[in-house]
Amino acid sequence: MAPAAIVIIIAVFEYMTFAFLVGRARARYGVKAPATTGHEVFERYFRVQQNTLELLVMVLPSLWIAASYWDPLLVAAIGAVYLVGRLLYFRCYVREPRARHIGFILSIVPASVLGLGALVGVVRALVPY
Amino acid sequence: MAPAAIVIIIAVFEYMTFAFLVGRARARYGVKAPATTGHEVFERYFRVQQNTLELLVMVLPSLWIAASYWDPLLVAAIGAVYLVGRLLYFRCYVREPRARHIGFILSIVPASVLGLGALVGVVRALVPY
Amino acid sequence: MAPAAIVIIIAVFEYMTFAFLVGRARARYGVKAPATTGHEVFERYFRVQQNTLELLVMVLPSLWIAASYWDPLLVAAIGAVYLVGRLLYFRCYVREPRARHIGFILSIVPASVLGLGALVGVVRALVPY
Repeated sequence: MAPAAIVIIIAVFEYMTFAFLVGRARARYGVKAPATTGHEVFERYFRVQQNTLELLVMVLPSLWIAASYWDPLLVAAIGAVYLVGRLLYFRCYVREPRARHIGFILSIVPASVLGLGALVGVVRALVPY
Repeated sequence: MAPAAIVIIIAVFEYMTFAFLVGRARARYGVKAPATTGHEVFERYFRVQQNTLELLVMVLPSLWIAASYWDPLLVAAIGAVYLVGRLLYFRCYVREPRARHIGFILSIVPASVLGLGALVGVVRALVPY
Repeated sequence: MAPAAIVIIIAVFEYMTFAFLVGRARARYGVKAPATTGHEVFERYFRVQQNTLELLVMVLPSLWIAASYWDPLLVAAIGAVYLVGRLLYFRCYVREPRARHIGFILSIVPASVLGLGALVGVVRALVPY
């Protein structure tokens, strides 16, 4: 499970870095807590953080479960694509929301593959054939 | 653990479906990213997705831990009530927020039962009697 | 894993309590669902809940993974600091956002220690020396 665990922890740190950058954007664009609106660029940072949180809900359990049924190195490699895709998504979205599609694809596709892999792995283990 | 793992993965896919429907509602009701307000019906979709994310934080670890201490099939069955309750909640909330209570009960009650089951299971295992 | 599992479940219940208090604040300050803005004090409750959700994404997997590589009681003790720090954060933020810093430190520091502990633990297990 160790390769999957490493990707899980890096994914969490990546997310915490996004959260930290949202905090910095809060100061830079003068959006005082608890407000989350008021400056277009701040809202981009905030939206990326939210989207990433949503995606992590799929990625973290799927990584863990998929790594129990498939080659952990392969599962970790798919997780690594997610990590890079998400970074790309962050950088592009913050500059220009319309440019977010490549990073979106490169994070939503590996996340879905991990989810499906976890599902197929468990079902295969339950249904003898 | 396999029955619990299946419910976990289905819960994640249910959530991703809600997230996808929020994306579609964004287009349909003309709420451009990164905004999350601007049209009442879009805000309902968005709020259900957020509520579901919040509940998943309880449901996913509780399912996993409870299934280590109790009959995994029973735990998975309680998880299945959550899955149906949440679907009901989504459908009702989007049509009319005031009609969300049945689906709310049918998802918050199984989520709490899973949480309590996990807690009681771990404490029982720690305290010999 | 039992001590870590108990902290995980208490962290989830703490979070659900925050969510419940957001619901109560919704009624008290007249912020009808699905809106999440409209009254400064309600927005504080809501923001604490959101911040806690974000932090749980780091805390829950890190607790679980760290407890596989280090003394589970030590890991659970660090998790307990997080639990108290977050409670302090909640109480202070709701009264006065500028007073949130002590509770913030007392929850972000143990969360980061758990994250780093998980990372170092996994890497040490992978790299023989």
